[in-house]
Amino acid sequence: MKKKIIQVFSKIKPIEGININTANIGIKSKVKEDVVLVSFTELANVATVLTKSKTAAPNIKWLKKIKNNGKAKLLFVNSGNANAYTGREGYQNVLKIVNELAEIFECGKENILISSTGVIGEQLPIEKVINAFPIMLSKKSKKNQDWLSFAKAITTTDTFPKGAFKQTIIGNQKFSIIGICKGSGMIAPNMATMLAFIFTDANLTSSQLSKMLNSSIQKSFNNITVDGDTSTNDMVSIFSIKRKNSNKKKYFNNKQLKKFQKDLDDLSIDLAKKIVVDGEGAKKLIEIEVVRAKNNKQAKNVALSIANSLLVKTAIAGEDANWGRIIMAIGKSSSTIKQNKISIKIGKNYVIKNGEIIRNYNENIVTKHLKKDDIYLFIDLFLGAGSSKVWTCDLTKKYIEINADYRS
Amino acid sequence: MKKKIIQVFSKIKPIEGININTANIGIKSKVKEDVVLVSFTELANVATVLTKSKTAAPNIKWLKKIKNNGKAKLLFVNSGNANAYTGREGYQNVLKIVNELAEIFECGKENILISSTGVIGEQLPIEKVINAFPIMLSKKSKKNQDWLSFAKAITTTDTFPKGAFKQTIIGNQKFSIIGICKGSGMIAPNMATMLAFIFTDANLTSSQLSKMLNSSIQKSFNNITVDGDTSTNDMVSIFSIKRKNSNKKKYFNNKQLKKFQKDLDDLSIDLAKKIVVDGEGAKKLIEIEVVRAKNNKQAKNVALSIANSLLVKTAIAGEDANWGRIIMAIGKSSSTIKQNKISIKIGKNYVIKNGEIIRNYNENIVTKHLKKDDIYLFIDLFLGAGSSKVWTCDLTKKYIEINADYRS
Repeated sequence: MKKKIIQVFSKIKPIEGININTANIGIKSKVKEDVVLVSFTELANVATVLTKSKTAAPNIKWLKKIKNNGKAKLLFVNSGNANAYTGREGYQNVLKIVNELAEIFECGKENILISSTGVIGEQLPIEKVINAFPIMLSKKSKKNQDWLSFAKAITTTDTFPKGAFKQTIIGNQKFSIIGICKGSGMIAPNMATMLAFIFTDANLTSSQLSKMLNSSIQKSFNNITVDGDTSTNDMVSIFSIKRKNSNKKKYFNNKQLKKFQKDLDDLSIDLAKKIVVDGEGAKKLIEIEVVRAKNNKQAKNVALSIANSLLVKTAIAGEDANWGRIIMAIGKSSSTIKQNKISIKIGKNYVIKNGEIIRNYNENIVTKHLKKDDIYLFIDLFLGAGSSKVWTCDLTKKYIEINADYRS
Repeated sequence: MKKKIIQVFSKIKPIEGININTANIGIKSKVKEDVVLVSFTELANVATVLTKSKTAAPNIKWLKKIKNNGKAKLLFVNSGNANAYTGREGYQNVLKIVNELAEIFECGKENILISSTGVIGEQLPIEKVINAFPIMLSKKSKKNQDWLSFAKAITTTDTFPKGAFKQTIIGNQKFSIIGICKGSGMIAPNMATMLAFIFTDANLTSSQLSKMLNSSIQKSFNNITVDGDTSTNDMVSIFSIKRKNSNKKKYFNNKQLKKFQKDLDDLSIDLAKKIVVDGEGAKKLIEIEVVRAKNNKQAKNVALSIANSLLVKTAIAGEDANWGRIIMAIGKSSSTIKQNKISIKIGKNYVIKNGEIIRNYNENIVTKHLKKDDIYLFIDLFLGAGSSKVWTCDLTKKYIEINADYRS
């Protein structure tokens, strides 16, 4: 499965105007590459969504500051250290990186995005970082655009690099969308982060990017949960690069972007699911679909209540057709539910219909589905037109092992 | 520790006018007693708080119906079957029990409380239950008030019976408060419940009981979490019995009840902590105190966010001084937090002061505290006058084992 997931990198078609430099500077590991510098030959349009954590890291503070600018020259990412809860010194270090890069690239500071992931509460080895830039930039990489190295460099406890690629159409032109992400729960031995970076050569305005990214996130990155925890450093950015020899100087109108939105949704869901598949200790990917809720918000509440229930997640780890726990999780979601309306399918098979266990309920069929790697739960609330899909993973002893027994 | 907890039963002084009958009727186990009938010689005043689950069991529906009545003749509890998600038949079975008991005791149906805990989705063996009553009532128990048998009969996967006893004073009179409860997480192999029943011989009105119970619950049963899951059958009742030869026929006024409220709070906290100590797979009891929040609600939100964080709970299971996870859990609680104001103590020792790690931070001291069975986390938000205390337990591999690997 992992091999198949990694194969995607060989299919990525480079986007002209994007330069990727990676290096190991020994932030935590002395072997694994741990910094990435992505630079755009011409300014890219950009939109970013940031963590809602109230204890967000200093780089998030910086990104909030430049958020409305909408133009990017550079993205710098480091792994191995989240530079989170590092106070004034932590923010000063972000500014040092920004200043240094602005000088090297002769660009506005407001065009520099900084992203970090890794251990929290420790200061960045700032000298190492600053000293790395000239070396990184002088280094000729084998490939001009090494997306796999990019994906590897931003991993922490991820067990595989995560990428996705899609070709899309706007009007009658073909464009690429490339996505790179990392994350595998709120990661041991300390805690890390969900980061995702998406790139396209479709010439889109930053407000179009922002609108579409926010819409996609509601169906993908905001719909996954490994352990219900939220990081101090989470972020998702999308960059749009204008093709060099593009005849079209004009931007597209919003009507033309329907197909792009759909493809961006699919790519985001693909990336999000890869994070869940890599959930700490996870053996199973669980898709939970709630339909006919009062509205989409209620659907998502109910779906997340199931997805975050330890009892549901452990039952699925144990391949136990314990539908009572699903009922419990629906009941505890703070939504108006009509008990005698609920229908539940596990896999393709109904277990509950209109609030009652189905006649001839055959637990063996359900148990057979639970033995698979991909689990599907379907909940029909029969209340309205709202629906939602979320993804989670099972909760295994391995999760406890990773998070309790290890210590870096 | 468990032995000490059980010793409390030998200290309980009987309250005249309460009759306890227990029996095994083979609901699930063929050995353990699984039904309790508590009857009051004279009508007791009563107040009850019920689960907020939207998929609550039929007995909860019945209790809601009679809630405003405020008078109790009988309490019937069964374990081994929650009679939850059992539809119309489940509710009919509750009514059958009520009708039968009303006839036997020649009392109003509205004076009969029914409580169930155990497997959900299965119908009660109603014939067995109905047939048990005459046998139970003819049986002469060794003790007239066997609180230990009561506590044992309502357990499911609890590893020890849970009770508490307190003597209190109103005016210059001494009264007793006896509490019995059960619960150990949302319990494997299916799911169960938190039940608590409190009895006093202080002559209190049902509205006084209701007011005081609701107040106590906010500091005790609502402040514990094992896995964040909520049962379909949760309930807490308090019964007040008028002393037979009491000269005082009058009720007390609210001013006189301050000491009683405090003692009821303490007893409820005692019971609640026993549930957490018995949390599935738990090795450690964790007390989380949040002070100087904007208000009490925010304090509780933050405390519960920490208490429900899998990463905090696994770190404590691993005796890992991973304060970054506490910061993360504070950050994800949807409250306005000022990062640079937060102070954190683990045990008696500050780790963070005013948003920064303390100088000379000595991890060894903190790790020493984490090796204990009782863990204390203190969070000062420096925002206002709100405070809250909650209790949880660590999350161990044993929890997963109980909930994933076992199956009844």
